[in-house]
Amino acid sequence: MIKIIVDCFGGDHSPDANIDGSLSALAKMPDLYLILTGDEAILKAKLEGRDYDHARLEIVHAPEVIGCDEKPTDVIRLKKESSMVKGIRLLRDEDEIAGMVSVGSTGALVTAALVRIGRLKGVIRPAFCPILPTMAGGIVGICDSGANVEVTPDHLRQFAIMSSLYLENVYNVKNPRIALLNVGKEAEKGDDLRKEAYKLLETTENINFVGNMESRDLLSGNYDAVVCDGFSGNVLVKTTEGTALELLKKIKKDIFSRTIYKIGALLMKRMFAEEKEFMNYQNYGGSVLLGTSKVVVKGHGSSKAVAIEKCIEQAYRMKVSELGEKIETEILKYEHYEDA
Amino acid sequence: MIKIIVDCFGGDHSPDANIDGSLSALAKMPDLYLILTGDEAILKAKLEGRDYDHARLEIVHAPEVIGCDEKPTDVIRLKKESSMVKGIRLLRDEDEIAGMVSVGSTGALVTAALVRIGRLKGVIRPAFCPILPTMAGGIVGICDSGANVEVTPDHLRQFAIMSSLYLENVYNVKNPRIALLNVGKEAEKGDDLRKEAYKLLETTENINFVGNMESRDLLSGNYDAVVCDGFSGNVLVKTTEGTALELLKKIKKDIFSRTIYKIGALLMKRMFAEEKEFMNYQNYGGSVLLGTSKVVVKGHGSSKAVAIEKCIEQAYRMKVSELGEKIETEILKYEHYEDA
Repeated sequence: MIKIIVDCFGGDHSPDANIDGSLSALAKMPDLYLILTGDEAILKAKLEGRDYDHARLEIVHAPEVIGCDEKPTDVIRLKKESSMVKGIRLLRDEDEIAGMVSVGSTGALVTAALVRIGRLKGVIRPAFCPILPTMAGGIVGICDSGANVEVTPDHLRQFAIMSSLYLENVYNVKNPRIALLNVGKEAEKGDDLRKEAYKLLETTENINFVGNMESRDLLSGNYDAVVCDGFSGNVLVKTTEGTALELLKKIKKDIFSRTIYKIGALLMKRMFAEEKEFMNYQNYGGSVLLGTSKVVVKGHGSSKAVAIEKCIEQAYRMKVSELGEKIETEILKYEHYEDA
Repeated sequence: MIKIIVDCFGGDHSPDANIDGSLSALAKMPDLYLILTGDEAILKAKLEGRDYDHARLEIVHAPEVIGCDEKPTDVIRLKKESSMVKGIRLLRDEDEIAGMVSVGSTGALVTAALVRIGRLKGVIRPAFCPILPTMAGGIVGICDSGANVEVTPDHLRQFAIMSSLYLENVYNVKNPRIALLNVGKEAEKGDDLRKEAYKLLETTENINFVGNMESRDLLSGNYDAVVCDGFSGNVLVKTTEGTALELLKKIKKDIFSRTIYKIGALLMKRMFAEEKEFMNYQNYGGSVLLGTSKVVVKGHGSSKAVAIEKCIEQAYRMKVSELGEKIETEILKYEHYEDA
């Protein structure tokens, strides 16, 4: 049985989306066991009359609620009975629990995970690795997308090792093509950080480093994962999502400017719905935190049931593929310098 | 008469696009005088029989060609007779020449401009400021988009002052809304650089600082310019262009998957053409270099005639609005620390 905690609060559509996503995941994965954290009375009432395998779902009462402007360090200290912090504590204390999914505050989750769960052996800094769809029909991972705004070449090498193993083990990508985000494709481009990282990546065994990538090529399908500092990774992911959504919104608006466009759009209705669905990050699950000693998946705050289900599936696959053990094996081949 | 140099080589469509763009600009602006640099025989042959005001155009012979993989520092030292380096020298030496437009190597142009032209008084680092269209029908400037991969809070403040004046004087944007690119909207987000820059920007007079901007909101129309380090600015601009182009390409491909879509698309043909045109950066001119003592505009390497014409127009407006003088006045209000 694979045991995963689902933090049922903290999202825009919580707890309904969290519950619905949990029940779908349970129905699809026969060896999945879920532990839902949150206010027991609310969760019980919502589950009343629903059809699911009661032997594979339990509720852990955690009545406190985290406000969106609370400081991450205060949250783990003061909100011990919140669905997130209690979940993280359970994850730490119970050996047989594999991972946790949360759509709550990113800052609080990262802090709680780092302080309470700790890192895999040899990992200097855990990093987020969200997945985006490419226009070629595949996917691309971005590591780090915001857990570490400042990084060293050594961190970037670890991000490359971790994201390569993630793509290979969780998404079955063979020999993932790993790129370094830079301002140009040539090896000598960028600041000292990128130049140094480029050299390290070239000499790293067991990763298929294909050189620098310019951000305009992210969706080209030529790369399986791109490594970067958390600041520019955050810009990369949010700009991609933002531009796609804004452009589709503009097209939708423009359609209403002339009758002939409206007729044309009517014929293409299904196609437009598919494009929107294609760019909907909810379908690609959450941003997994690579490098923590247990699995932590952060779903978007606006996650609906389908996104929650994907997050649970990601956590499940990370566990069954023994991703953590594989990351440790590769990372420990290199000497890494701890931060001061 | 406003005198501007047009470097006629170095682009994908050079020299034809450069010549065509120059002649359109001449026809539209009666007090514009252009100096075309490049191989005289080629330029003369191309101009033969064309209809333009001969009294307002001259050619300066510069036969050397810059290869795309030449080192910027080598270029200015060894390619003195190239259209770019000779243009920059003319710009430096002739008081009555206001600026220069080039679509050649970015690195060589920045290096040549910094070494030969120098900076406005008080400016620590000149920065690129390209313009993108927003989905609300306006424009947004990004400063810096790649001239400085590493910056300090002081640099970011100068970028804010320069881009604000640029938007106001060249694009008639009243009281431009200036934002700081960050990983979240709250004031305490980001690394030390962003936190420190936020404080400086809050206390800078004569700019309308509206706080942090997340990259997903770049095209929202809520901001007139965003300041950032050149690395993440480069990611921001190229991701926006890349995503929009890839998405339009995908839509085009998907249209051919079903007959009904093809019929629909036929009715919407003009709209799709307009969307493509709307996202075509060629229509928004080049990336001006803010902070040099004379005007330097860098057009995209793939610039066609319309883009060249826009670049000339940008250079012209920067001169007539006395942007340089205005930047000096504002910048000199603050004590800035020179780089080592």
